[in-house]
Amino acid sequence: MKVLVLGAGQLARMMALAGAPLNISISAYDVNSDSIVHPLTQQNLGKGLANAIADADVVTAEFEHIPLPVLAQCQQSGKFFPGEAAIKAGGDRRLEKQLLDSAGVRSASYHIINNEADFNAAISKLGLPLVFKSALAGYDGKGQWRLKQPGQAAALWQDISAFLAADNKQAIVAEQFIPFQREVSLIGARNSRGEVQVYPLTENHHVNGVLSVSLAIAGNEQLQQQAQQMFTAVANQLNYVGVLAIEFFDVNGELLVNEIAPRVHNSGHWTQQGADVCQFEQHLRAVCVLPLGSTALLRPSLMVNILGEDTVPEQILALPGLHLHWYGKSKRAGRKMGHINLSADNNAQLKQRFEQLIALLPAAAFPELAQMADRLN
Amino acid sequence: MKVLVLGAGQLARMMALAGAPLNISISAYDVNSDSIVHPLTQQNLGKGLANAIADADVVTAEFEHIPLPVLAQCQQSGKFFPGEAAIKAGGDRRLEKQLLDSAGVRSASYHIINNEADFNAAISKLGLPLVFKSALAGYDGKGQWRLKQPGQAAALWQDISAFLAADNKQAIVAEQFIPFQREVSLIGARNSRGEVQVYPLTENHHVNGVLSVSLAIAGNEQLQQQAQQMFTAVANQLNYVGVLAIEFFDVNGELLVNEIAPRVHNSGHWTQQGADVCQFEQHLRAVCVLPLGSTALLRPSLMVNILGEDTVPEQILALPGLHLHWYGKSKRAGRKMGHINLSADNNAQLKQRFEQLIALLPAAAFPELAQMADRLN
Repeated sequence: MKVLVLGAGQLARMMALAGAPLNISISAYDVNSDSIVHPLTQQNLGKGLANAIADADVVTAEFEHIPLPVLAQCQQSGKFFPGEAAIKAGGDRRLEKQLLDSAGVRSASYHIINNEADFNAAISKLGLPLVFKSALAGYDGKGQWRLKQPGQAAALWQDISAFLAADNKQAIVAEQFIPFQREVSLIGARNSRGEVQVYPLTENHHVNGVLSVSLAIAGNEQLQQQAQQMFTAVANQLNYVGVLAIEFFDVNGELLVNEIAPRVHNSGHWTQQGADVCQFEQHLRAVCVLPLGSTALLRPSLMVNILGEDTVPEQILALPGLHLHWYGKSKRAGRKMGHINLSADNNAQLKQRFEQLIALLPAAAFPELAQMADRLN
Repeated sequence: MKVLVLGAGQLARMMALAGAPLNISISAYDVNSDSIVHPLTQQNLGKGLANAIADADVVTAEFEHIPLPVLAQCQQSGKFFPGEAAIKAGGDRRLEKQLLDSAGVRSASYHIINNEADFNAAISKLGLPLVFKSALAGYDGKGQWRLKQPGQAAALWQDISAFLAADNKQAIVAEQFIPFQREVSLIGARNSRGEVQVYPLTENHHVNGVLSVSLAIAGNEQLQQQAQQMFTAVANQLNYVGVLAIEFFDVNGELLVNEIAPRVHNSGHWTQQGADVCQFEQHLRAVCVLPLGSTALLRPSLMVNILGEDTVPEQILALPGLHLHWYGKSKRAGRKMGHINLSADNNAQLKQRFEQLIALLPAAAFPELAQMADRLN
């Protein structure tokens, strides 16, 4: 089985590692260089996108910010999963909001802004505080603004109008600010027969808008059911095939969708050690029409992102239940360079191991871990 | 970190998969084609052995039947682990027996045969029944003979003398037949500081001399201690660095070494799902001077070899706790094509899952599995 992945980053790389044991070989389309590479070796495979699509049994994607002509070309092949509509919905907040409305799942009230009249309408319709998010290419906290006081509106409009003027494809989605207790995400898969398998919910802790720690949370059946119902509604609405991630705001036990990612997701990396079948293998199973695997939590697990660092103290490898995953990237400030998975037999042991890990990691490069450790019990 | 592996088969491939998350990149020396390849893609990397050794930080091996000049060349580099002596001892039963004697560990009494006088001396010294094994390149039951009755000795000598005449480097090691209850193996690692970490013992079931099923056995502390003591004696004797496998005969709870393999081993594949750190990662940690990882059994686990088949029923992927590992090889009768790992929360569940698996697999291609299932409880 040959799978072509749009995008040649760490998610394609981990798909390649998960696919090899199933004799699924992965090639990757690097959008920046417009070339087909091996996602593990980064070797240029010397063929163009059209040939790569023709050679592949299945085409899929590791991210949603893909040029529209490329999406159309893949869609035309008839072997692109989850397909053009799903990827677009993940890459454009306007489409995403339409999708959530159609699927009948809760998210923050919103208003789309293309000009100053829209901006003022958003404020009067939704009230303050408001969050403004760019419609396109705005992940990891980039392209976001907040408005708390009416007096700040004029200055904010200067920023936003300049942002809009720079790209005529852009728009802004204004959202009511949600006073959430925490952010959780649900990773799951849907196959072409409409079967859905989801992992346990994950609690996510961000630092400066970037994911720092994800913790698998099992045992909250009410919350899990709620998330699964919303997941299934969205996945069915898209006739989705593959792994899908949905980020939620948890507001006193009521979930609202924050955003969707039509792909494997950073907050699902713990499944590499915490579940029978990890999200990367599960995605390949779904798009290659193989049976979905078990998504049950094997043991308490969490993940810590490694951002902007290309080394960690070697001693962490001696901690039981620890797995280190580097992405083979060159160092750059803030870049996702790798992650650490940590598992244990029970929550108390996980907390203990996490504290041992925190003591070994440089605090400057791994801020706020102790706060997440405090949440474990 | 760059590691060159002598041998480009499935063991090097699985090392590559285990090494990637540690940013350890693996190239492999294919002894047959005398070329350096990527062990996952099998792409020819277009450089000779000397350059590959020079480029690598560490040189290691996935099998022991390597031309002696290659071993000498690697040894000279000063970065070959476990090194020439260990690989030679694994590839020549004469050296292996000397090693076991020096380490003071029990194995079957033996006599080395180069001619008819030796053959007769072996019979009179050791008595019958006897097992005759070729000194070189005789794994998976090839190059073995048995002698039960004195009247068969003359005919057997015809066979053996023809075998010896065909290759003047060969010899035969005659061994007392050991009436063992079962064969078990111990996989473990030793690092350059002399630290040893072993996995739980594995019970192995062979069909026609080839490994069919391996089952991790935990809980027999006396047997585990005995095996670990013998393992440590052999590893220390060789000043071993890396993963080492020792196969034992279990004779009423007393272990005798059958043979050693100075490398990761087929009977340790269950560690990919049954332990925190699998044997492939552990080997890389040892030879790359990283801390050894935990070898504790996470949950009851077994492995089934896939021999000579390039497909299995897809439905097996729906069984919880199951992992399928193909080696990307072309089909050939009897060839090791892949393996299936199976894990469960407890022994009863493992037995149940194994029985479900057996019911799905074609019995002709997977003989005698039911007998192994009967041993689970």
